[in-house]
Amino acid sequence: MTNSPYFSDHDHLYMAKAIELAQLGCFTTTPNPNVGCVIVNNNQIIGEGYHIKAGEPHAEVYALRQAGVNAKGATAYVTLEPCSHFGRTPPCADALIKAGIARVVIAMQDPNPKVSGQGVKRLRQAGIEVDIGLLSEQAEHINRAFLKRMRCGIPYIQLKLAASLDGKIAMQSGESKWITSSDARQDVQYFRAQASAILSTRATVQADNASLTVRHAELPPQIQMIYPQETIRQPIRVIIDSKNKLMGDENIFKQLGETWVVRKDDKPIEQANCRLLIESSAKMNIDLTSLFKVLAEKQINSVWVEGGSHLAGALIEQGLVDELIIYYAPKLLGHNALDMAILPNLIELSKAPEFTFQSTIKIGDDLRCILQKKTK
Amino acid sequence: MTNSPYFSDHDHLYMAKAIELAQLGCFTTTPNPNVGCVIVNNNQIIGEGYHIKAGEPHAEVYALRQAGVNAKGATAYVTLEPCSHFGRTPPCADALIKAGIARVVIAMQDPNPKVSGQGVKRLRQAGIEVDIGLLSEQAEHINRAFLKRMRCGIPYIQLKLAASLDGKIAMQSGESKWITSSDARQDVQYFRAQASAILSTRATVQADNASLTVRHAELPPQIQMIYPQETIRQPIRVIIDSKNKLMGDENIFKQLGETWVVRKDDKPIEQANCRLLIESSAKMNIDLTSLFKVLAEKQINSVWVEGGSHLAGALIEQGLVDELIIYYAPKLLGHNALDMAILPNLIELSKAPEFTFQSTIKIGDDLRCILQKKTK
Repeated sequence: MTNSPYFSDHDHLYMAKAIELAQLGCFTTTPNPNVGCVIVNNNQIIGEGYHIKAGEPHAEVYALRQAGVNAKGATAYVTLEPCSHFGRTPPCADALIKAGIARVVIAMQDPNPKVSGQGVKRLRQAGIEVDIGLLSEQAEHINRAFLKRMRCGIPYIQLKLAASLDGKIAMQSGESKWITSSDARQDVQYFRAQASAILSTRATVQADNASLTVRHAELPPQIQMIYPQETIRQPIRVIIDSKNKLMGDENIFKQLGETWVVRKDDKPIEQANCRLLIESSAKMNIDLTSLFKVLAEKQINSVWVEGGSHLAGALIEQGLVDELIIYYAPKLLGHNALDMAILPNLIELSKAPEFTFQSTIKIGDDLRCILQKKTK
Repeated sequence: MTNSPYFSDHDHLYMAKAIELAQLGCFTTTPNPNVGCVIVNNNQIIGEGYHIKAGEPHAEVYALRQAGVNAKGATAYVTLEPCSHFGRTPPCADALIKAGIARVVIAMQDPNPKVSGQGVKRLRQAGIEVDIGLLSEQAEHINRAFLKRMRCGIPYIQLKLAASLDGKIAMQSGESKWITSSDARQDVQYFRAQASAILSTRATVQADNASLTVRHAELPPQIQMIYPQETIRQPIRVIIDSKNKLMGDENIFKQLGETWVVRKDDKPIEQANCRLLIESSAKMNIDLTSLFKVLAEKQINSVWVEGGSHLAGALIEQGLVDELIIYYAPKLLGHNALDMAILPNLIELSKAPEFTFQSTIKIGDDLRCILQKKTK
């Protein structure tokens, strides 16, 4: 049994900085993880970097470039275990060794089977001191989507709901424009922009004539600054169309980026940016878990869900929701209005699906609550 | 037109202290307002006091007693205009004059027609410098119930709801024990303890075998310290029993304090601590506004409502709710569960009753949201 390593206050500060850097990649790195790196020599930061985009250099490479010859004898703080394999770029472990880094502090091991433990092993074999586990919770959090896909083979599922205080998402007539404020609807853009994919249904797409895109002008100003218009990434739009009713002329097919349609036959919609994702036999309902497995195979880390109460209910009932994001408007719509989630099989209170409040914040006049799936 | 008075940083500090003191009376002063007083001479607090209970001395008297002869030439900070009439105690304005106070700073005028403006006039006639309006918002807030009764002739209505994320208060079967955590249920005690009256219905009382009392042991420890067991005040329990179904043997009649029953005939329940409050004609529903007017006449400042979705809906629909206190448990009960509020007449989204989020806080695993009626 080994003792857990000792981390100084300085170690904490530098790793916190590395995590801050890692987060800058949150709009663009998918399907890769967010990684940040800080290189320190004589208590001075001499190099900083973060991973921006798949195919471009890893965080360590940027930081080493900045550090130059001063990297010799320095300490590198990395939020995720450095890779040891040749992917689209050469292994970072080798780069750290070559630069003469003396100590590497790692927030957490990479669960990617191509890396897991191998990066650490390689560094140690080269005589580098390696300490693991500093601020690992924060490091887990910023990569919770990537880690979920690696560990479970399905994406991280975020279900967004916009409701009244009494949990209603539309009037009996279907009227729902708008329950929440424009501030809340703008806030949604920030989450969409981070998602690998956005999932919705044919009914929602047709009812709202939805585009389900990221609109740069609606991102918060501080995000616009770090995420310029020309680099904007449109998450894949995944639309469940189990009755094969989409025609191909809907608004959603006219947007930048791809739309993947999930239907019951193999007749694709004739649109350049549209592909048929999976087919299920005509008599079966679309199976959500199967769909998510397919999405994970296609390197989708996270799925942001904006749909109706049937999709919400099905996801919740099947325990597929990792994170609930609920915008509550401070009004009541009454018992005749439409419910947030259809849960046909729930009879006993003790069987109610449970979550954990993570954060609440006022967005304009509304309240945004983020909840995580309850760990038993 | 007079200029608004200038208040120094010291003035702010002392008035904030006076408001803090006033709040100590929040469990006991009903039907009187909460008032705090600080007396300052040469930048030293020489006297402090707050109103504890109707019939006992007012805040100014306690503070003057403590200040003694040093009150001469001092400044008094009072959260509410000093009274000028003989009520159960002699007028405080006279006491301040007699003690030789040189300046009185008042957070807000008393809307009580027996006082309003008269206290200030009396002080000024005696040559005392009087400045009004310092921290008036906070002063309004701590007496919002008393002020509502004075200004509108009906009590301040607080509606408490305990619901799931999707706004449900019970399963279809009626099962509701317990949606929220024991922490949330304990938190309710803190609000009950401040209410002049607790309003519920026969259905709730019978279904839950409710006692609707304040239980000292369940108050937060810091409240127990300032509000000892032997001084506990039981709010009046007001039960709407429009079908005359209460028998008199229910749990609620076995508790300390009074129960007032609102029924449709004049046959009282034979219980020592129970009185028949109003009768309405056998063919009419109990009118809530009339009920509240009667309660205000009986000096009820605030009503804390714990009932079902029909009472909640009726209060909301009639615009009678001043404050919503919602405890959200982080779970979903689905579309078949029972709704928070029955609003039979609401058809259009634009007519939905609106509130304003005032505060949110985690209570155990649950979230407590306090909302105020939206001012148009």
